[in-house]
Amino acid sequence: MNCLTSIATNTLFSPLLATATETEAETGSQTLIFAGVLLSLVLIYFANKLGGEICARINLPPVLGELVAGVIIGVSALSILVFPESGSEVTDSLIIKFLETTAELSPEAATSVFASLSEVISLLSELGVVILLFEIGLESDLKELIRVGPQAAVVAIVGVIAPFATGTAGLVYLFHVPLIPAIFAGAALTATSIGITAKVLAEIGQLTSEEGQIIIGAAVLDDILGIIVLAVVASLAKTGEVQITNIIYLIISAGVFLIGAILIGRFLSPYLVGLVNEMKTRGQLLLTALIFAFSLSYIAAVIHLEAILGAFAAGLVLAETEKRKELEEQVIPVADILVPIFFVCVGARTDLSVLNPAVPSNREGLIIASFLILVAILGKVITGFTLFGQTNLNKMAIGVGMIPRGEVGLVFAGVGAASGALSEATEAAIIMMVILTTFIAPPFLRLVFKEPAEATLLEDNNPKPIIGEEN
Amino acid sequence: MNCLTSIATNTLFSPLLATATETEAETGSQTLIFAGVLLSLVLIYFANKLGGEICARINLPPVLGELVAGVIIGVSALSILVFPESGSEVTDSLIIKFLETTAELSPEAATSVFASLSEVISLLSELGVVILLFEIGLESDLKELIRVGPQAAVVAIVGVIAPFATGTAGLVYLFHVPLIPAIFAGAALTATSIGITAKVLAEIGQLTSEEGQIIIGAAVLDDILGIIVLAVVASLAKTGEVQITNIIYLIISAGVFLIGAILIGRFLSPYLVGLVNEMKTRGQLLLTALIFAFSLSYIAAVIHLEAILGAFAAGLVLAETEKRKELEEQVIPVADILVPIFFVCVGARTDLSVLNPAVPSNREGLIIASFLILVAILGKVITGFTLFGQTNLNKMAIGVGMIPRGEVGLVFAGVGAASGALSEATEAAIIMMVILTTFIAPPFLRLVFKEPAEATLLEDNNPKPIIGEEN
Repeated sequence: MNCLTSIATNTLFSPLLATATETEAETGSQTLIFAGVLLSLVLIYFANKLGGEICARINLPPVLGELVAGVIIGVSALSILVFPESGSEVTDSLIIKFLETTAELSPEAATSVFASLSEVISLLSELGVVILLFEIGLESDLKELIRVGPQAAVVAIVGVIAPFATGTAGLVYLFHVPLIPAIFAGAALTATSIGITAKVLAEIGQLTSEEGQIIIGAAVLDDILGIIVLAVVASLAKTGEVQITNIIYLIISAGVFLIGAILIGRFLSPYLVGLVNEMKTRGQLLLTALIFAFSLSYIAAVIHLEAILGAFAAGLVLAETEKRKELEEQVIPVADILVPIFFVCVGARTDLSVLNPAVPSNREGLIIASFLILVAILGKVITGFTLFGQTNLNKMAIGVGMIPRGEVGLVFAGVGAASGALSEATEAAIIMMVILTTFIAPPFLRLVFKEPAEATLLEDNNPKPIIGEEN
Repeated sequence: MNCLTSIATNTLFSPLLATATETEAETGSQTLIFAGVLLSLVLIYFANKLGGEICARINLPPVLGELVAGVIIGVSALSILVFPESGSEVTDSLIIKFLETTAELSPEAATSVFASLSEVISLLSELGVVILLFEIGLESDLKELIRVGPQAAVVAIVGVIAPFATGTAGLVYLFHVPLIPAIFAGAALTATSIGITAKVLAEIGQLTSEEGQIIIGAAVLDDILGIIVLAVVASLAKTGEVQITNIIYLIISAGVFLIGAILIGRFLSPYLVGLVNEMKTRGQLLLTALIFAFSLSYIAAVIHLEAILGAFAAGLVLAETEKRKELEEQVIPVADILVPIFFVCVGARTDLSVLNPAVPSNREGLIIASFLILVAILGKVITGFTLFGQTNLNKMAIGVGMIPRGEVGLVFAGVGAASGALSEATEAAIIMMVILTTFIAPPFLRLVFKEPAEATLLEDNNPKPIIGEEN
C-alpha cells in the first residue's frame, strides 16, 4: 500500500514534493527499494532455476548450477547482482541501472537505495540458510546422530587438525610464508560449509544414510571448531599468544548451548505440540515452530555461535515430535523461496578475478593456492579413512562430503586481511582455495556415492520431505 | 555464516578490530541486524498468534486480534516494535534496548541498526501483502469476477463518490474547514483496504461467495480509483487546478495494465505450466509462479500503480490453470510466515495517542473525526443498496465489506500533511477515522454474514485452500 505514496514522491507530483517532509521522501525511496527487492527476487529465482535445471540435465548437482548462476549474474561476470561488502560500487549494479531507467530512481537516491537493497537481499539470504539448517535438522535423526556421534567427532577433529597442520607447515617450510599468515591460511583450511554438502546429500537422497548423518554431524561440529579456531588465530595475530579464557568460554558455551537446546527442547516439545493442537488459527504449527527455531537462532547468534546452529538444534528437536511430517511439508515451500537466495548470493559474491593468471599479482597466489587446494582436498578426504574397522561405510564419501569450505573459509580470509596479517597473495590464495573446494565438492560427492537412491527418485510428484530432491 | 564474523567485530576481539576495515564493521552490524530481524520475527509471530487465538475464542475475527496485538507491541503502547517513519526514535525501541543488553549492540551503532532493522521488517511486511493479494487472486474466480464486474463497478464508484461528496461538503458547511483540506479529508474517505476485508472474508469462508467476489472486485477497483483520486487531490492542492493529462495517464495505465496482464497472462500460462512440468528441480512450480507474480508487481509499481495489483492479477491468471490447487497448497505456508508481519506492522504503526481526549488539541479533531467516521461508514454501507433488484444478495454485507480504510487512508493523511494543506486537527481526525473503520469492520462484517460456512469449517485438519480459515 506504500506504493500509493510513490505517486507523491515520484515525478508525477514532484513539484508538490518541494514541501514534502523527510519522512515522505524516505517512504518514496522505500517504494523504490521494494521495487528493487521484487526485481532482485525475480532475477535470483530465474538464475537459480536456470542453473539448477541445466545441471540436473547434464547429471550434475543442481546446487552447483545455482552457485554458477550466481557467479554469472554476480560481481565476476554480468554485475547484475552485486554487494557493497564485496567492494562493488552503486554504479556497478545493473539492477540499480535498471531501476534508474524503469522506475525513475534518481542518481542521488541510487546510493542509499543500493545500500538498503543489498542489505535486504543479504538478510533474506541469511534467513535462507537458517531455514535450510532448520529443514536439515528436521530431516535428521537425533538418535542416529548421537549414535554416529563418536565417528562424526573423529571426522571433524581429524578434518581440522590434518589440513591445519599440513597447510601451515607447508606454507612456512615450502613457501617461506611468515608464521602468522601461514596460521591464518591453515585455519581457513579447517572450515566445512554444511549448507552446500547437506544440499547435495539431500539431492542424491543420502541425507539420512549413515554416511550422510556422519557428514552432517561432523559438519556441525566443524562449525563449532571453526569458531574456536578463528578465536585462537585471531588472538594469536593480535597479541602473539592465545587467550585461553576466550577459548574455554567458546568451548563451554557451544557445548552448553547445543546440549541445553536439545534437552530443554525435548522437554518443551510435548507442550508445544499440545499448544499447537489447541490453536484454531491458520499457520499455527509453522509459526510455533519458527518462533522456537528463531529464538534458538537468536540465542546462538548473541552468544557468539552461529544462528544456523540454533535453527539446526530446533529442527532436530521438532523432528522427534508427531508433527514432523506435517511440519516438513510446510517448511518445504518456505525453504523453496528463501534457500535459493542464499546459494545465488554465495555465487554472486564470489569474485573469480583472483583466478585470472593474466594478472601478474595473481601468479604468486595461484602457486600458493594450488598447494592449499591440494591440502584442502587431501586433508578432508583422509578423515573418512580414520574410521578404522568399519568396512561397510563409504569412507571416501565421508571425506569428500567435508571438502566444501563455502563462505566460512572466506570469513577467515576476511578477518586475516582485516588484521593486516595476510599478504595479498596469501589472501587471494585462500579465496581461490575456497572457491575451488566449494565448486568441485558437489559433482565429486555425487560421483563417490555411486548409486543415487533410485527408489526415492521414482516416487510420485507430490512435495516430498527430502531436501532438494528432484521429482 | 556471517555470524562467524561477529566474533571479530564483537567484544571478544575488540582490540583486533582497531585495525579492522570499515567492511568488517559493517559485517558486524549486519550480524546484529540479522539478530534483530530474528528477534522481531519471534515477537511478531508470537503477538500475531496470541491476538489471533484470543479473538478466535471470543468469536471475533482473528485478523482483528492480529491488528490489536500489533497496536499493543507498537508505538501506542509497549513500544517494542516501532518504526522511524512513524516518528519513533532509536531510544524508543525496546527491541534495540534488548539487543544492547543481550547482543552487545553499542549505543553508537544502535541508530543505524534501528534504521536497517525497521527497513527490513517493513519490506518483509510489504512482501507479506503482495503474497496475500497473490493468494487472494489465486482463490478468486476470474469468470465470476468478470460476471460480477458491473455490480463491483457500481459499488466501487458509489463508494468513492458518496463519502467524498458528503465528507467534503459536510466539513465545509458544518465545520467551516477550508476547501482544500476538506477535499483531502473527503478523498481519504474513498479508500478501501482490500487486505483486511479479504482476510476476514476468507476467515468466515465467504471469499468465493457472490458477495465476496463483488467486494473483492470493488476493492480492487477502489485501489485504482484511490490512486486517481489522490492524483486529482494532490494536483489540486498544488496548483489549484486538476492536471487532466495525469488523470488520463493513470486511468489508461491502470486499465491497460489490468486487462493486459490478464490477457497476456492467459496466453502465457499454458507455456508456464508446460515449463513447470518439464522442470526437474525442487520448488519449480512455486518459484515459476513467483517469478510471474513479482514481475507483474514490479511493473505495477513502476507505472505508479500498486505492487499488490500485479500480484493479484498474477494470482487470477494462475488460478485458471490446472496447477491451481497444487500452487495454493504451496503458497499457504509462504503466506503464513509473511502475511502476519503485514498485519502486526499495520497495528504497530497505528498511533492511538491521537484518540486521547485528555489532550486539548485532540478535541477539535475528535469532533471532526466523529463526523468523518459517520460518513465513512454510511458512505460505504449504502453502496450495496445501490444494486437494485438483486434481492438474493446480502447488500448490507457488501457495504460493510468496503468499510475498512487501512493504511491506504493514512497515505492521504500523509500526503496532505506533507503538502501543508491539512491542519493538525484535520490530520488527526483522518487518522482516527482510518483507525476506527479498520478496527470495527472485521467484527461488523462477521455479524452481517450471519451464517459462517459451517460445512467448510468442519472439514479435515489438512492445509486447506481457503485463506485464514480456522481448523
